[in-house]
Amino acid sequence: MIELLTIGDELLSGRTADTNASFIARALAEAGLSVRRFSSVGDCLEDIRRALSNLLPDTRFLIATGGLGPTDDDRTAQAAARTFGCELTVHEAAVKNMEARYREFGRTMPAAAKKQAVLPEGCQAIENPVGTACGFLIRSRGCQFMFLPGVPEEVHAMVTGFIVDHIRGECGMRQFILSATLKTFGLWESKIQELLNGCLPDLPSVSLGFYPAFPEVSLKITGTGTDEQQVKKQIQRFQEAIQKRIGEYIYSENNELMEEVVGRLLAAQTATIAVAESCTGGLITHRLTNVPGSSAYVERSFVVYSNRAKQELLAVPEAVLKEHGAVSEPVARLMAEGARKAAGTVYGLSVTGIAGPDGGTPEKPVGTVFIGIATPDTTVVKKIFYPGTREKVKMMTAQMALNMLRLVLLGKYA
Amino acid sequence: MIELLTIGDELLSGRTADTNASFIARALAEAGLSVRRFSSVGDCLEDIRRALSNLLPDTRFLIATGGLGPTDDDRTAQAAARTFGCELTVHEAAVKNMEARYREFGRTMPAAAKKQAVLPEGCQAIENPVGTACGFLIRSRGCQFMFLPGVPEEVHAMVTGFIVDHIRGECGMRQFILSATLKTFGLWESKIQELLNGCLPDLPSVSLGFYPAFPEVSLKITGTGTDEQQVKKQIQRFQEAIQKRIGEYIYSENNELMEEVVGRLLAAQTATIAVAESCTGGLITHRLTNVPGSSAYVERSFVVYSNRAKQELLAVPEAVLKEHGAVSEPVARLMAEGARKAAGTVYGLSVTGIAGPDGGTPEKPVGTVFIGIATPDTTVVKKIFYPGTREKVKMMTAQMALNMLRLVLLGKYA
Repeated sequence: MIELLTIGDELLSGRTADTNASFIARALAEAGLSVRRFSSVGDCLEDIRRALSNLLPDTRFLIATGGLGPTDDDRTAQAAARTFGCELTVHEAAVKNMEARYREFGRTMPAAAKKQAVLPEGCQAIENPVGTACGFLIRSRGCQFMFLPGVPEEVHAMVTGFIVDHIRGECGMRQFILSATLKTFGLWESKIQELLNGCLPDLPSVSLGFYPAFPEVSLKITGTGTDEQQVKKQIQRFQEAIQKRIGEYIYSENNELMEEVVGRLLAAQTATIAVAESCTGGLITHRLTNVPGSSAYVERSFVVYSNRAKQELLAVPEAVLKEHGAVSEPVARLMAEGARKAAGTVYGLSVTGIAGPDGGTPEKPVGTVFIGIATPDTTVVKKIFYPGTREKVKMMTAQMALNMLRLVLLGKYA
Repeated sequence: MIELLTIGDELLSGRTADTNASFIARALAEAGLSVRRFSSVGDCLEDIRRALSNLLPDTRFLIATGGLGPTDDDRTAQAAARTFGCELTVHEAAVKNMEARYREFGRTMPAAAKKQAVLPEGCQAIENPVGTACGFLIRSRGCQFMFLPGVPEEVHAMVTGFIVDHIRGECGMRQFILSATLKTFGLWESKIQELLNGCLPDLPSVSLGFYPAFPEVSLKITGTGTDEQQVKKQIQRFQEAIQKRIGEYIYSENNELMEEVVGRLLAAQTATIAVAESCTGGLITHRLTNVPGSSAYVERSFVVYSNRAKQELLAVPEAVLKEHGAVSEPVARLMAEGARKAAGTVYGLSVTGIAGPDGGTPEKPVGTVFIGIATPDTTVVKKIFYPGTREKVKMMTAQMALNMLRLVLLGKYA
């Protein structure tokens, strides 16, 4: 049984949210290991000591983070020494780890840093490949206590580089663990669960995790077993069953972002794009240009907040704006075509809508959006309605627009 | 002494990060109350019961979240009843709370939902103003156990609406607690600490909290006392001392976002703006248009990723691009002036830079950015250098550009 303990006054005051506990728990869960309890205490010596002494009865592994830094309020090593009745002493492996990091950073080691190499006698140092403070492991009372620094990057490196494999080895888990991630957009978590109900192969060694992050849901398939090929095959079967049922909503089997998928498709066609954004205000182009190398296909974009900008930059006639309103099918169509033509790109993408909180009418309430895509052959326009906060309307619209573009690029948009 | 307990399998598997604990801890800290320990356990009846039974010796208040929903794996009420040796019974106040919420949402109450009103006998219901599941309070063994649902919005509402005041009342804290937030940009946390060192008035009832969130740092001044006017005055004195020392880095005393401050200044001048973005790829305009009502001053923007776009939309001469390169002082200047002229706005803002990871050269490494602002009177250009990931270069550049615009609008840009 595994417990986690996170240490630091900044956690208890709510100043820092504890991301280490959930990162470690997830890394362990993906390796088939489950955590029974988390606790957090402050930097008070007595509280740390008490937490180390009051484990659940069956705990065999405790992973603690925090309190290993160079300053006076970092007291974890001291608390551990007191708990396990040993002395603190300079640990040679820890000194070497520290010297190596300072060399890499091209800095000389300040004297105060040496404190980080003072560890309980008889402990085993855990290498920190990205930071100066080593971790350490102590075996006592039938339990292994593993202490890591609190910096998230260091915790990530040490958990994936040592902790997970170590615990698996100690537990005699010699199996393979493989996983695949399917990223979906267009269905909420509960709907996916409902659709998959009864459609998945009965494979006890394969599990499915749901990770919703507005406005999408990632599915992670994890399989374990002693035969690598067998595990791969089982994950494959699972993946195929999911594909068969909700394939049209899966946009990546590769853990890519939507903008990466769209970018990859544009790059593969050596095509270029121009975006005309109204209600999204630049968010679509911001996402497209987050991808390294996107300058190869993003030629330019227009944020056309005013009607005058729509007329001047995209040649949307004033009469159409007057007759149908800026948020309308004809305007979205002309915006997409106008962006494509003005920029001389292969594709033009447009959005025009009402992000709120004001500006809604009974006919066009907040959340009404039209998305247009102009290609060399045709122009398609779709109306969507997603009522929500301004922020969420922008996010949902950008995602819908990128997904629609993805389908068009794949020749799958009907 | 206060402890927090968060309940849910989704926490222990790392599927959901626990934001409730840090929210509650922060709300309590700001009210002068400190938390001694957090724990998290899964939805297992026995683990919840054990957690409720094994408090720290001095704990007088335990706040638990999670496990109050309508499904079978929500077991907190049952665990509480077992721990405190009482029966579960339908609680009338909880039924009323539930009916009120369903009425508000315009939905009829499903039969399964009734489970949420089944609470330990003799408990006091805690109203949930935004959700269907009531909380409840039980007094036992010298401690008050307060149970809340796990949905963050509901936790926020119940903690600020009941928990904080209740605990303060029970502790006999009748003081006023007031606070002020100063948002700063341009200094890292450690530098602010260094600058403020020895410059703050010696007022033990006033505390200063640092909340860094890349690329800025918020400072929260919290004061307590029995005389409201006195507390206000003390906070004021603190605030003035900070202003005096680092005033030029404070962009809001009002907890506004940078884009809100800039928007307010533009609206106050009834001025309009057009942005020409290269390396930020739309992020600046995305942020400006996140503010409700921004259509009053954001006329249009240009994302000019290609040199051709810079020429066609902003009239940057090809010769200047060739001679100085797209990332240069003259191009930033011409972009800002071109955006202002093309859009017919009062102001033009431009950025051109190298966001990376590719495209850097020895003379212009990744992170080199020029920001330009054209006003009716003049054009100013600033060179910045912030090496970092593509994402951070974009974020830092957008923030620098908005801050520079803020200073220009205030007539403070030197």
